[in-house]
Amino acid sequence: MSNTFKSIGLIGKFADTTVANTIEALSQYLVKRKVRCIIHDDTAKLIGDQGLETGTKEDICKTCDLVIVIGGDGTMLDAARTFVDYEIPLLGINLGRLGFLVDISPDDMTKKLDNILEGDYLKEERFLLHANFICEDGVNTESYAFNEVAIHKWNVARMIELDTFINGQYVNTQRSDGMIVSTPTGSTAYALSGGGPLVHPTLDAIVMVPICPHTMSFRPIVVDGNSTIEITIADINQVDAQVTCDGRVNFNVVSGDRVVIRKKQKPICLIHPSDYDYFEILRAKLHWGHKL
Amino acid sequence: MSNTFKSIGLIGKFADTTVANTIEALSQYLVKRKVRCIIHDDTAKLIGDQGLETGTKEDICKTCDLVIVIGGDGTMLDAARTFVDYEIPLLGINLGRLGFLVDISPDDMTKKLDNILEGDYLKEERFLLHANFICEDGVNTESYAFNEVAIHKWNVARMIELDTFINGQYVNTQRSDGMIVSTPTGSTAYALSGGGPLVHPTLDAIVMVPICPHTMSFRPIVVDGNSTIEITIADINQVDAQVTCDGRVNFNVVSGDRVVIRKKQKPICLIHPSDYDYFEILRAKLHWGHKL
Amino acid sequence: MSNTFKSIGLIGKFADTTVANTIEALSQYLVKRKVRCIIHDDTAKLIGDQGLETGTKEDICKTCDLVIVIGGDGTMLDAARTFVDYEIPLLGINLGRLGFLVDISPDDMTKKLDNILEGDYLKEERFLLHANFICEDGVNTESYAFNEVAIHKWNVARMIELDTFINGQYVNTQRSDGMIVSTPTGSTAYALSGGGPLVHPTLDAIVMVPICPHTMSFRPIVVDGNSTIEITIADINQVDAQVTCDGRVNFNVVSGDRVVIRKKQKPICLIHPSDYDYFEILRAKLHWGHKL
Amino acid sequence: MSNTFKSIGLIGKFADTTVANTIEALSQYLVKRKVRCIIHDDTAKLIGDQGLETGTKEDICKTCDLVIVIGGDGTMLDAARTFVDYEIPLLGINLGRLGFLVDISPDDMTKKLDNILEGDYLKEERFLLHANFICEDGVNTESYAFNEVAIHKWNVARMIELDTFINGQYVNTQRSDGMIVSTPTGSTAYALSGGGPLVHPTLDAIVMVPICPHTMSFRPIVVDGNSTIEITIADINQVDAQVTCDGRVNFNVVSGDRVVIRKKQKPICLIHPSDYDYFEILRAKLHWGHKL
Repeated sequence: MSNTFKSIGLIGKFADTTVANTIEALSQYLVKRKVRCIIHDDTAKLIGDQGLETGTKEDICKTCDLVIVIGGDGTMLDAARTFVDYEIPLLGINLGRLGFLVDISPDDMTKKLDNILEGDYLKEERFLLHANFICEDGVNTESYAFNEVAIHKWNVARMIELDTFINGQYVNTQRSDGMIVSTPTGSTAYALSGGGPLVHPTLDAIVMVPICPHTMSFRPIVVDGNSTIEITIADINQVDAQVTCDGRVNFNVVSGDRVVIRKKQKPICLIHPSDYDYFEILRAKLHWGHKL
Repeated sequence: MSNTFKSIGLIGKFADTTVANTIEALSQYLVKRKVRCIIHDDTAKLIGDQGLETGTKEDICKTCDLVIVIGGDGTMLDAARTFVDYEIPLLGINLGRLGFLVDISPDDMTKKLDNILEGDYLKEERFLLHANFICEDGVNTESYAFNEVAIHKWNVARMIELDTFINGQYVNTQRSDGMIVSTPTGSTAYALSGGGPLVHPTLDAIVMVPICPHTMSFRPIVVDGNSTIEITIADINQVDAQVTCDGRVNFNVVSGDRVVIRKKQKPICLIHPSDYDYFEILRAKLHWGHKL
Repeated sequence: MSNTFKSIGLIGKFADTTVANTIEALSQYLVKRKVRCIIHDDTAKLIGDQGLETGTKEDICKTCDLVIVIGGDGTMLDAARTFVDYEIPLLGINLGRLGFLVDISPDDMTKKLDNILEGDYLKEERFLLHANFICEDGVNTESYAFNEVAIHKWNVARMIELDTFINGQYVNTQRSDGMIVSTPTGSTAYALSGGGPLVHPTLDAIVMVPICPHTMSFRPIVVDGNSTIEITIADINQVDAQVTCDGRVNFNVVSGDRVVIRKKQKPICLIHPSDYDYFEILRAKLHWGHKL
Repeated sequence: MSNTFKSIGLIGKFADTTVANTIEALSQYLVKRKVRCIIHDDTAKLIGDQGLETGTKEDICKTCDLVIVIGGDGTMLDAARTFVDYEIPLLGINLGRLGFLVDISPDDMTKKLDNILEGDYLKEERFLLHANFICEDGVNTESYAFNEVAIHKWNVARMIELDTFINGQYVNTQRSDGMIVSTPTGSTAYALSGGGPLVHPTLDAIVMVPICPHTMSFRPIVVDGNSTIEITIADINQVDAQVTCDGRVNFNVVSGDRVVIRKKQKPICLIHPSDYDYFEILRAKLHWGHKL
């Protein structure tokens, strides 16, 4: 029996000791299947010494041909931003409740992994966003987002005014609590809370969803995935704003700063069981079919 | 010719020198009409010495039977919270653009005021909200709001979990960016941005509008104006939240704190020209009748 | 032991034989409790001769001090329109699944009815709408609605243009698929599908919800329950429209016709078990608390 | 001076005599520019004999390398469905008010056409939908839509139940007034009224927008343009439904019938002036930038 994946990295939810049981069961299973198994250092600290091989992110990237992420969708978002540049595929095992991204339950993970190791799986490419934050003084920092880049007011209960451009074309100026620029993956996350549409993960598109716009004449806009979106913090703003990637990484921005958002060219690869059904997850998570 | 209002206080937009011209024209008009005219100290400082009577809020409350507010809707919100306890009616003159509350234009203010001083006007009572902030350690502070009380996340890009009770009955627990509790007056302000319905100002009702709720199964709720609304910052929250009244007055709240919101029993009285038409303002401000 | 209600009429869902078991169990229970029990003729036909007293609507109105409605919310809507003029209270037993209006389950109906017959119950007044259809030639017909009056396009896939007036004041002209004018009771029915807010049943208010308005600048409006709403089918329309009350009663209307809608002055009285909890029903029916 | 387009067909709004002036001015201009000009027979009848060449649709398709459509967006929808199979590009001149598709005003049409005839223009490909209506008895009819295919209840005020499948995968079952399946072009039409997002015309995507769904747990879905969408009229329906393409072409469907919708492989080509700006039209038509 030859395994599709020979060497697998394991990463658990950050600072969450409840992953220990699943990690143990998983590593025992993998060892038994003759798969080399490297536990990320941070995760290893959480679960105590099990006599298992551990390593840094770099060790995992050099050695492994798959990373299994154990946690919630947030854990997978972190892993995607971390591993996207290394072209290593990810597979998610959920703790507690089913996620959009961590779609294997610990209860039947060995059965699902049997199939996956035998080559019976779905491989899906999804894209991340690449955000540049360009200050008026020329300083330029950057970040990635798998779900969304959100430009939003910070700290003070006042609206911010944003100018939006798509591929250099002026779109509009708008006062609101902020703007969400989302991948299809993110369309079931913060963009959904803001009133955005569901976007099928295979669609090469970016969604822009205003946060509490102070107008009735606005709608989410869906544009081509290869668009360049530029959002400028208008000069009129007396308050600072903040940019947040996937609800984790934060940058402060001020009047005159520009945020330029593009699809990241290198995609992330997700591995799903072959019976993976996006709409089934949607129905389960969003209570579809629940008629009043 | 006897004037309906004998003594009028004048209050301009805070720290805005552009009110000077309107205040001058207005006070000259009033002096000519033999109306005693007291300019609020803060406003007087903005416009320089015009040889006019000036006074504190207390002076105005003791002496005047009307306060004219010159500025935007925000200026009127401030004035309403300030004067509501003194049972003195307010009339609004807008600077720049028409407001929902400051509904007289400087261009025809003398004509409108002629009619109003001759007793030809509409008197409208509107209510404010009274919010109590009750900490777990028993400390209890309070504030008023003419538009809305908003409980919202503060500073960090994470959702907050709120438990809502109406008249002691549990309504629901919800993760979101926050909750807006609005008067009918506020239904065209932040509550509108959050997706709430328009509520006619004569209706004795309170509207609750969630801010970016992380569910699709939520809707704004309209309840009786005499309801007691209690919102608890759930224990699960690791982030602090903030309560903001009319976008101005801020209180920090933490897990376990409760915000209790009721209609303030003493209403504020607004004076409108007799041709005041709420729907005409709605059409103008919200671009109704603009068909695609 | 004296019963609060001495004589009870029973009405089952129209033309639905599945009510038979519940009606039988219910009538046996009532006979045992020494309550006089009159089964509506139409319902009696459905269940065959059980040796029970039967009667017309008029018989029930003359004799009974309560009507028990067995079916779904639609059955209760029909009963409310039928009995509202007779000041006889209604109580609902649901078949199959919990309704907003038929809130007692057959499984525990005898326990609930024990308490109700002993005087332990909640009495709630709700209002219906009264709609007048006024043709240009002066013909005037009328109907009632417990949920909503919907003016909507009919048969052809074109928008209709409607002019709306509230208390004689012009509100707007709008092209859409139609307009829903709803009671608080109806706010969880068609008005909800159209995007309207939830309105607590104790609020004295009417909600107007446009159906697919061809503009982004529109919102549901909530007005005082004592408002007179007039909707005119604009002259421009080349298509006929239809008015539907509670999804049942239909009238055709043409350009120039007017629909005048007011609160019906006589309310309908609903009887609930004393542990009735409106928000609990909302949570159950609308899947509240279901977080993504 | 050589013209980019040598022979141009002219089609006016159906049965609308107000096109006469524009058609006359346009044909005189084209004759002067040495462009051969064929007026569609139906349009020619409207404007009387001008001594101009007239012809059938077939004549135009054989001879012309451009069709100019004079009317509203609806006229362009009709022309797109008519000419899509003949690979002839379309250019729109609006009558009265600016349209999304008829984007040249009669006032400056000669100036715009000068540039276009000199080769200075934008060429844009957009796609239509192809709908198959498959009855249980095997009969199969078809139609095209440039804006949308709408499956909706017909005639009776009851909801219909629809089962939706995308690429053979079950999506959900839903009770509503119907479902709109829209192109990006149609995202500013009926899909907008139903609450759908704006979709940029260059995006290869199809949007599905439910019409008044009787649930709160639904959102518009945006899927890849190459998806096959199948909607089945569920067996439970006691009412007939109707399918409407672009608000014009109607088919009756009954329980068990299936509607299969795909992108039409042959696109339609639109010619725009080189300063065409989609977002400018959006701003103008949707009142963007209008802050409250």
